[in-house]
Amino acid sequence: MAVRAAVAGASGYAGGELLRLLLTHPEVEIGALTGNSNAGQRLGALQPHLLPLADRVLEPTTADVLAGHDVVFLALPHGQSAAVAEQLGPDVLVVDMGADFRLKDAADWEAFYGSPHAGTWPYGLPELPGARAALEGSKRIAVPGCYPTAVSLALFPAYAAALAEPEAVIVAASGTSGAGKAAKPHLLGSEVMGSMSPYGVGGGHRHTPEMIQNLGAVAGEPVTVSFTPTLAPMPRGILATCTAKAKPGVTAESVRAAYEKAFADEPFVHLLPEGQWPATASVYGSNAVQVQVAYDAAAGRIIAISAIDNLAKGTAGGAVQSMNLALGLDETTGLTTIGVAP
Amino acid sequence: MAVRAAVAGASGYAGGELLRLLLTHPEVEIGALTGNSNAGQRLGALQPHLLPLADRVLEPTTADVLAGHDVVFLALPHGQSAAVAEQLGPDVLVVDMGADFRLKDAADWEAFYGSPHAGTWPYGLPELPGARAALEGSKRIAVPGCYPTAVSLALFPAYAAALAEPEAVIVAASGTSGAGKAAKPHLLGSEVMGSMSPYGVGGGHRHTPEMIQNLGAVAGEPVTVSFTPTLAPMPRGILATCTAKAKPGVTAESVRAAYEKAFADEPFVHLLPEGQWPATASVYGSNAVQVQVAYDAAAGRIIAISAIDNLAKGTAGGAVQSMNLALGLDETTGLTTIGVAP
Amino acid sequence: MAVRAAVAGASGYAGGELLRLLLTHPEVEIGALTGNSNAGQRLGALQPHLLPLADRVLEPTTADVLAGHDVVFLALPHGQSAAVAEQLGPDVLVVDMGADFRLKDAADWEAFYGSPHAGTWPYGLPELPGARAALEGSKRIAVPGCYPTAVSLALFPAYAAALAEPEAVIVAASGTSGAGKAAKPHLLGSEVMGSMSPYGVGGGHRHTPEMIQNLGAVAGEPVTVSFTPTLAPMPRGILATCTAKAKPGVTAESVRAAYEKAFADEPFVHLLPEGQWPATASVYGSNAVQVQVAYDAAAGRIIAISAIDNLAKGTAGGAVQSMNLALGLDETTGLTTIGVAP
Amino acid sequence: MAVRAAVAGASGYAGGELLRLLLTHPEVEIGALTGNSNAGQRLGALQPHLLPLADRVLEPTTADVLAGHDVVFLALPHGQSAAVAEQLGPDVLVVDMGADFRLKDAADWEAFYGSPHAGTWPYGLPELPGARAALEGSKRIAVPGCYPTAVSLALFPAYAAALAEPEAVIVAASGTSGAGKAAKPHLLGSEVMGSMSPYGVGGGHRHTPEMIQNLGAVAGEPVTVSFTPTLAPMPRGILATCTAKAKPGVTAESVRAAYEKAFADEPFVHLLPEGQWPATASVYGSNAVQVQVAYDAAAGRIIAISAIDNLAKGTAGGAVQSMNLALGLDETTGLTTIGVAP
Repeated sequence: MAVRAAVAGASGYAGGELLRLLLTHPEVEIGALTGNSNAGQRLGALQPHLLPLADRVLEPTTADVLAGHDVVFLALPHGQSAAVAEQLGPDVLVVDMGADFRLKDAADWEAFYGSPHAGTWPYGLPELPGARAALEGSKRIAVPGCYPTAVSLALFPAYAAALAEPEAVIVAASGTSGAGKAAKPHLLGSEVMGSMSPYGVGGGHRHTPEMIQNLGAVAGEPVTVSFTPTLAPMPRGILATCTAKAKPGVTAESVRAAYEKAFADEPFVHLLPEGQWPATASVYGSNAVQVQVAYDAAAGRIIAISAIDNLAKGTAGGAVQSMNLALGLDETTGLTTIGVAP
Repeated sequence: MAVRAAVAGASGYAGGELLRLLLTHPEVEIGALTGNSNAGQRLGALQPHLLPLADRVLEPTTADVLAGHDVVFLALPHGQSAAVAEQLGPDVLVVDMGADFRLKDAADWEAFYGSPHAGTWPYGLPELPGARAALEGSKRIAVPGCYPTAVSLALFPAYAAALAEPEAVIVAASGTSGAGKAAKPHLLGSEVMGSMSPYGVGGGHRHTPEMIQNLGAVAGEPVTVSFTPTLAPMPRGILATCTAKAKPGVTAESVRAAYEKAFADEPFVHLLPEGQWPATASVYGSNAVQVQVAYDAAAGRIIAISAIDNLAKGTAGGAVQSMNLALGLDETTGLTTIGVAP
Repeated sequence: MAVRAAVAGASGYAGGELLRLLLTHPEVEIGALTGNSNAGQRLGALQPHLLPLADRVLEPTTADVLAGHDVVFLALPHGQSAAVAEQLGPDVLVVDMGADFRLKDAADWEAFYGSPHAGTWPYGLPELPGARAALEGSKRIAVPGCYPTAVSLALFPAYAAALAEPEAVIVAASGTSGAGKAAKPHLLGSEVMGSMSPYGVGGGHRHTPEMIQNLGAVAGEPVTVSFTPTLAPMPRGILATCTAKAKPGVTAESVRAAYEKAFADEPFVHLLPEGQWPATASVYGSNAVQVQVAYDAAAGRIIAISAIDNLAKGTAGGAVQSMNLALGLDETTGLTTIGVAP
Repeated sequence: MAVRAAVAGASGYAGGELLRLLLTHPEVEIGALTGNSNAGQRLGALQPHLLPLADRVLEPTTADVLAGHDVVFLALPHGQSAAVAEQLGPDVLVVDMGADFRLKDAADWEAFYGSPHAGTWPYGLPELPGARAALEGSKRIAVPGCYPTAVSLALFPAYAAALAEPEAVIVAASGTSGAGKAAKPHLLGSEVMGSMSPYGVGGGHRHTPEMIQNLGAVAGEPVTVSFTPTLAPMPRGILATCTAKAKPGVTAESVRAAYEKAFADEPFVHLLPEGQWPATASVYGSNAVQVQVAYDAAAGRIIAISAIDNLAKGTAGGAVQSMNLALGLDETTGLTTIGVAP
């Protein structure tokens, strides 16, 4: 008895990656695919890598089209999910890949997104303390942002074990697919190849309050976050370098032990052996998270580094993982820890 | 009852890609993994993207280690396969991913590879006329070269339909993984990024006689091939631009019809709708082949272009596809036509 | 007494590269810079690599603004140059970097560009037989297309020495800057990185008649050209693989001799030593052309390969070189053969 | 009367970039070029982008070969410069592009480089307070490391103006040429394209004590530095994201003012207008440094970001700039602030 899934926003990068994963998910049957400006077009023209769906035609994103599915994924621009979600019944599992239902603090939402706060749904990062239980059986899921996924997984063990002061400094590099498929001059290949550049510097990136929310919840106290995202010349991947001042008494051993404990039973998060460091190429196309951590005694800081695929674990893979939990399936169904490299 | 497979040469790019595919092959159990200079090392250090095998340790490539498997894949340097293969029993399926058993003409072999000819095995490109039948039930398979795979699939329909003169001119661009994992200065990232360059120009590339063999067999007459390979700044993928002088009377319609007929029942070769052209990104990590063809009336030439993943369909995917046929499995088992893009 | 130069279309890639070169040209003073949609903006926001011009503001492209200069460069969309040029006096040197005045055959122009033919100006590829003399003292220059530059330089010696049959087959790879700065989805970094793809296949690319014109003029007979352009994952550079059937009696020595003779006195075209092949990285940012040639006796073809920087020698560098000739300056003034590598 | 310059280590990336710059330096004549393993080879085979030097042959690195020059540049592996330098007379300007004479603290040198400390020479980063005067007329120059160049220029104004606490957290991304031309597996194009990865995490990178030395000297007190370098998929460029806790009372205005003052008269360091951020592409091949700074009030940190070309301003350009000062030439002679973009 297959789970019938619709995807609203199937022409973008998040929607395309989701379809790539759903196509090989053994319990899912792909239903309606919708777009807005692209409604009426063949998927083969929009997502030429999804050969099995090449002849599917995008429908408009309406309640009628989305009706009659067990799961509806929303890969829509920020601020558009609530209007669609409220037309779907309470028994339909709605998985929002946008930001709309991630933040608990309405003031944060409004400050960073500039529209009324739509609410808060269970947060689709099962590895965070307490998160898995909230997802099991849920009918609504807010998929985390890609940067918060990479950053929260890298740093929460340090806060969970009370090893870090509540002041995090984070610099992350993202592949260009994180900026979406809308054609903008600064995202042209000619501009991004051979170049690294920052953006949203100084606290302005919308993922900042989400990191603060996640780390603060684990720390049990407010955590300040200095977050600088950079654009890297690659299509996919996030490398997040996350540092926090170490509390007195911290040692390399206590740090290592905290991380080993945090990820011991996690199917997707892999703490690398000492001496080996994450690389985004290693998790290309996979739901795996590679993490490594060091304690810099001279600087008095913990440095935790994670690599994810921003479209997979950072978006669509995380969505499928949470969907599995919500539906009572094995959490790893249809997902892989095997990257496509080199 | 799983098929137990050993991989000789598990530390290189071909071996790594093969393991990536075998890990999700539902009928295969991965047995011994061997290397030479890397014997004794953890696979996690050599192939960090293959997380499920991270703790496996490479063994030396010996007959003892390779004994007791149903299938043995040889991903060895050219010229080394025969010595290993002859120590494996006739009931073991041996799949050679090197060049040793591809060429029928001993003189060609010796001219291009400089060592004694070891013989000829059934050729693992099922899409070629007659090839599929020879693979079914076979105990020995010679996996084609990556360029011959891309080129033969792009051009054979023109020769099968007697539309092309026996003079082909081919220029192909390959990702750098085709050049292997041995560290050479001209393959450094600093050298290849931002650069296109040719090599093996003027008929010197070892894959040339293989193309001549394949196309000539379909044409039923000797075909001359001008082949120029180029190195492109990307890790994977081959884009092969293959042209041949059109015979008198050829039309755009007759060309299109010949290609539609040739690939009508092929699970992996996808003739794109008119107006859409192949891109290597679309087949990244997949066994799919994207083909498009045009007839340039002014120049009097047929231009057929194919895109493959050199490591997947061009090497390891082709090997698995042929293994499936040899073992009596469905040809598509464990393989996908879904690329990882963007 | 400096030459005062205006640039119409200063915000695009061609205009930006031209300014980069003019900034270090010892005889040129940069005058008006114009744009259309970008008029009123600081150049520092549009061309952040041109620090010395960061505070210059773009003016609208009008006859008034362009008046009072010794040289006016037109880096405008195809079809717009004639209207601007006719407003500039006959004593002003007008260098058109668009296609408008390249083709001699009005029917070709109309077939490929779809607008009335504006005329034909002296062709700015001094290395072609007879071209240099026509440029000296000229007040109008049509700068060649980037592909025709690479292709004509690679192949003309074979035709000049009557070594090649009039049937050329050409495949070229270009960096993405050749497609311009207008934001289009298929030119996004996410799409082009890691991908090779063809376009304009089958004779449709607008540069095809220009190649036919150039090679035919040298050959003294009509030459058919099969031209396939491909988009490569790099910002700059063209690698053109150009082949032609060899005439009877051709030898490797006669081919080499023809190329040595053709380029013996050329300041920018460098025939590489035997065994060394062009790479686009080697000419990055320079006006140099690297050429190598081989004779494939088995296939009966001459293979000539050139590497240029599409924006430099392929556009702006070629424009400056021709301007130098027109103004009576040393042809190499302000230009370099030194690439920026790695 | 030209300055006659020899380059020891002309086959590597630093040596190649230095030659690229010296070729257009109006006061320099290029003398002996030496290598070790590459002695006897044509430079055209090793540095194919340096066409004007293609026929020069590398000589062995000996005192005899290096004698008779006004300037000798040493682009040698760390630890080898002292032995060569001591054979050159006190009147010869020796510019060491290695690390040997950068550090003042012998214990630091020995801890990070594992060999006896050779001494300390005037430090070739003229923009640092007091550095320019020490270089004028000097006969010995220690060229800074590429990361310390980017980091020190980004952060010193904050310390010079007493705006920052002595705890810096720095993450930098470097192009692969920073890792040199020796062929190592992890530097293959196949490995680095599409991947970001860290290295030398936790204080282990050899450039860390150099940053501590520079920032501490400006701050007037010891500064701890948490430094994480990452490898980015591009050949050139460093983007350094440098943060420091702000002292009480700091405002966005006071930060901006400090940076404007620090760079007001600097010919190569360009503080971007507010709202524009550095990109490594903009400084490709140039000696320019793009800097931008923000004050994140919520996190209480100053974030200063710089972009340089690691081979130009980060190595060879910095060397030429310092040479100019040492020789009494205008500091900008032979250098440019114009990048090669896109």
